[in-house]
Amino acid sequence: MSVKAKAIYTFLSENKEEINIQENEELVIFDENSVDGWFQGENSRGERGLFPASYVEIIRTRSNSNVTDCSISPAGSLEKDSSYFHSYPITPPHLQQPYDDDEDDDWDDWDDRSTVVDDSDHARSPGANGHAHQSPLSNNPNVHYRPKPQMERQDSISSSRKGSMVGRNLNRFSSFVRSGVEAFILGDVPMMAKIAESYTIEMGPLGPRWKDNPQPFSCSIEDPTKQTKFKGIKTYISYRVTPSHTGRPVYRRYKHFDWLYNRLLHKFTVISVPHLPEKQATGRFEEDFIEKRKRRLILWMNHMTSHPVLSQYEGFEHFLMCADDKQWKLGKRRAEKDEMVGAHFMLTLQIPNEHQDLQDVEERVDSFKSFAKKMDDSVMQLTHVASELVRKHLGGFRKEFQRLGNAFQSISQAFMLDPPHSSDALNNAISHTGRTYENIGEMFAEQPKYDLFQMLDKLSLYQGLLANFPDIIHLQKGAFAKVKESQRMSDEGKMDQDEADGIRKRCRTVGFALQAEMSHFHQQREVDFKDMMQAYLKEQIAFYQRVVQQLERTLRMYDCL
Amino acid sequence: MSVKAKAIYTFLSENKEEINIQENEELVIFDENSVDGWFQGENSRGERGLFPASYVEIIRTRSNSNVTDCSISPAGSLEKDSSYFHSYPITPPHLQQPYDDDEDDDWDDWDDRSTVVDDSDHARSPGANGHAHQSPLSNNPNVHYRPKPQMERQDSISSSRKGSMVGRNLNRFSSFVRSGVEAFILGDVPMMAKIAESYTIEMGPLGPRWKDNPQPFSCSIEDPTKQTKFKGIKTYISYRVTPSHTGRPVYRRYKHFDWLYNRLLHKFTVISVPHLPEKQATGRFEEDFIEKRKRRLILWMNHMTSHPVLSQYEGFEHFLMCADDKQWKLGKRRAEKDEMVGAHFMLTLQIPNEHQDLQDVEERVDSFKSFAKKMDDSVMQLTHVASELVRKHLGGFRKEFQRLGNAFQSISQAFMLDPPHSSDALNNAISHTGRTYENIGEMFAEQPKYDLFQMLDKLSLYQGLLANFPDIIHLQKGAFAKVKESQRMSDEGKMDQDEADGIRKRCRTVGFALQAEMSHFHQQREVDFKDMMQAYLKEQIAFYQRVVQQLERTLRMYDCL
Repeated sequence: MSVKAKAIYTFLSENKEEINIQENEELVIFDENSVDGWFQGENSRGERGLFPASYVEIIRTRSNSNVTDCSISPAGSLEKDSSYFHSYPITPPHLQQPYDDDEDDDWDDWDDRSTVVDDSDHARSPGANGHAHQSPLSNNPNVHYRPKPQMERQDSISSSRKGSMVGRNLNRFSSFVRSGVEAFILGDVPMMAKIAESYTIEMGPLGPRWKDNPQPFSCSIEDPTKQTKFKGIKTYISYRVTPSHTGRPVYRRYKHFDWLYNRLLHKFTVISVPHLPEKQATGRFEEDFIEKRKRRLILWMNHMTSHPVLSQYEGFEHFLMCADDKQWKLGKRRAEKDEMVGAHFMLTLQIPNEHQDLQDVEERVDSFKSFAKKMDDSVMQLTHVASELVRKHLGGFRKEFQRLGNAFQSISQAFMLDPPHSSDALNNAISHTGRTYENIGEMFAEQPKYDLFQMLDKLSLYQGLLANFPDIIHLQKGAFAKVKESQRMSDEGKMDQDEADGIRKRCRTVGFALQAEMSHFHQQREVDFKDMMQAYLKEQIAFYQRVVQQLERTLRMYDCL
Repeated sequence: MSVKAKAIYTFLSENKEEINIQENEELVIFDENSVDGWFQGENSRGERGLFPASYVEIIRTRSNSNVTDCSISPAGSLEKDSSYFHSYPITPPHLQQPYDDDEDDDWDDWDDRSTVVDDSDHARSPGANGHAHQSPLSNNPNVHYRPKPQMERQDSISSSRKGSMVGRNLNRFSSFVRSGVEAFILGDVPMMAKIAESYTIEMGPLGPRWKDNPQPFSCSIEDPTKQTKFKGIKTYISYRVTPSHTGRPVYRRYKHFDWLYNRLLHKFTVISVPHLPEKQATGRFEEDFIEKRKRRLILWMNHMTSHPVLSQYEGFEHFLMCADDKQWKLGKRRAEKDEMVGAHFMLTLQIPNEHQDLQDVEERVDSFKSFAKKMDDSVMQLTHVASELVRKHLGGFRKEFQRLGNAFQSISQAFMLDPPHSSDALNNAISHTGRTYENIGEMFAEQPKYDLFQMLDKLSLYQGLLANFPDIIHLQKGAFAKVKESQRMSDEGKMDQDEADGIRKRCRTVGFALQAEMSHFHQQREVDFKDMMQAYLKEQIAFYQRVVQQLERTLRMYDCL
């Protein structure tokens, strides 16, 4: 039965089976039971094809009110058209291009370029740091810039187990496939003899959560310094990075952060890896830009060190501690050869024994999905308001107060023109009042540095984190669909119960991991937004107090008249 | 010798001999020696004719640098073309129309209309209260609204003494003629047997000044109350007016103020009579308008009571004290029959014996003229800035803060969507922060009531006072020209020295009166602008302190988290 739906995110097709959908566009879904997280349907322009189920919301009307309220009806998955199920060979991403470091291209001081041309998904991702390029439309204040959900995760599956009874995903570019989660769920990822890494999920009072890093630490980023080499031909910014547990500084450039970031994307399926601050092609040594990138790298680093899983990553440890060039190359290669990435990372997770009903987990995830969508919208809204306020502070507010100041000065000048009847004390006081308002205009223009910029930094971090979730939730939806499908096949005698149980068990791992990540996000959000609001209010209070002080000092000039 | 000049005010011709000149327009003056305060010249459109000398500034270039720097060269007046001198019969203003009270037209409750259809210059003046109607051009922010200089003063001269040797003003609509100052200077105004009124000018440390009112008083205007009559068909606002020296309230309507204002215009040549607040044809019972008119009537009244001459006017006393209908009519008629108006008012002035060199006086007046022009410009500038600030407070500022408030609320709402991970305390604090910024937006919108409105009120009063001065200065210029002309004629034996001495003596009176008025203006300006600036700063301080308090209270909500 076809149902109506609305796109809650914009999705741009990347393959011929897919169709574009626009945020808020009305859609028709031919079968409301998604296949591996994909719906088949029609958009408002009459184009037919696939789009991600997690990008849309089914519209419930009176005529189909007998359908349950969750957009993916669990029971319904048994009714899907089995002609959708084909086996596609799983191939690695076909679009590999040389690494293009727009920061600068002299990797060779660390490593030779050929080993760095990597298997990353740079070429297809909207930007190396996960940020989409802003479309020209975004100059329109009604069109909100939204980073494209991260559809690109490393496909590290190199072999397809023949003869699997459960069909593989229709769309080989689905994040579910590419992330390796499909392969993991289907048991295609062989358990390895010894796994050095291990990340534990425990049950907390609010549900599953990552076990804390037993050696918590923080890390400062300071002193961005312009460096030159090749006799000044190349310039770059070096940051002093000092982890608290060693106290020994290392010096890192943006490209090192970017290398680490790409390692994280490869490895950590189901974890929302914070986006790096934007690259800026031109004017990157401009003071304000360096300052802004530093502030945002600090926030990025704080998120890294406070994440129980990311903070324990060996590649991160290498990044934080290695001060020797030769050692750096070795560690870098080791990290790039890490096998426990993508699907294999799932093998490193230790989950609690507690039983969780899969439907409860699904409801939990749906609830988070609604929350994340609304938070994404409101973070976007606040970002726009705060950006506009910055503009007003630098423009309108400053201008108005300066104009007032000029007008007072002009009055004072007029009063000086008829000397015998001119009071110097009054003229000075009025002229001083003029200068005070000119100062206040400047104070308004300066103020965003102390409050709104910090707010925008944090909002930008959260925009990145939130942009990851549609994809992560998509993984879980795909996993659950597999469980239902395998159960149906087992019920019909087409699959061993053991195999179905294996799929269900592995799906539990995905569910626990996702819940742990959701929980960590909430915990961090609470700390971060409390801090953000407090810091903003404190700076605002200090600002208005300074205005009051300026005005009080000025008022006193009239007392002696 | 023709010279270049620049118009410093716009002048619109009202007679065929005159030509229009625009502020900043370049002009050619055929003879830089003005005739009775008028130049003959050509505007930039090639039109030739007369325009007031006090409206222009002569441009000195290297080629005519041998000419002195004052725009009217005293010596030069002897060279003027005597063909300019014709005797025009002095006629009363020819454009008399029924009094049109747009407040309401039921004068009949005080007096019958026929006696009120008066000799005022309403019909020709830009507005009964001296305010020009704003031209459509004034929507252009670069075109400043400027009340047209008051060209209309009562011509109360009914007879022209035949055979006067000194020519009368070429232009019968010149304020110099209409004010009666020409007639007074030429000795056409007969000294009367007994003059009950007397206003003294004394020498102060800064020059001539009005002798203080021996019985100073103030006067409150309170409690504007909507009244109805004719069973509710007519509505009007009545103000309670309480002079301090009687303590007894009288009740007055705007039309009574307007009647008094027109009496003042008739009587007080050389005094800058404060303009009444604007009439407003529609919505005049709208609360804000009533409040604004009340505030401006209070300022008007304060200026009246603080003026040594105006405050002693019998018609004003009648306005302030008469509480009886019958007595009101009698007093009103008496004031309207007052003979000591216009030219005759000059007879009531007692001047000091000190000698003042006429050229010194002229320089003194020129210096005031420059000052008044610059003050007029800067008052206009401040008026525009303050009006724009009001608009910003009500619009942009409010909107920005409300948007910020909404965005915070939206964040708080998002945080409530995933209940097990939702902190009520944090959500409440953020939501409260949102409401605080919405309040701050409202506070911005309310603030002009406490500061900018008061500033604009006072600036409006001063715009009116300053708009009177070009005309008043024009009177003095005309008088001085007569002195020079008569001296020349006396030197040439064409006039008795006695008659020339009489003209010089009467010109001294005009000079003293003008200086006393200039001095009073400065004295009042100093008090008023000091008060205005202090009041503005105090309210601004209180405002930003309230903002700080609101933010501090909000910040405390985060402390307990």
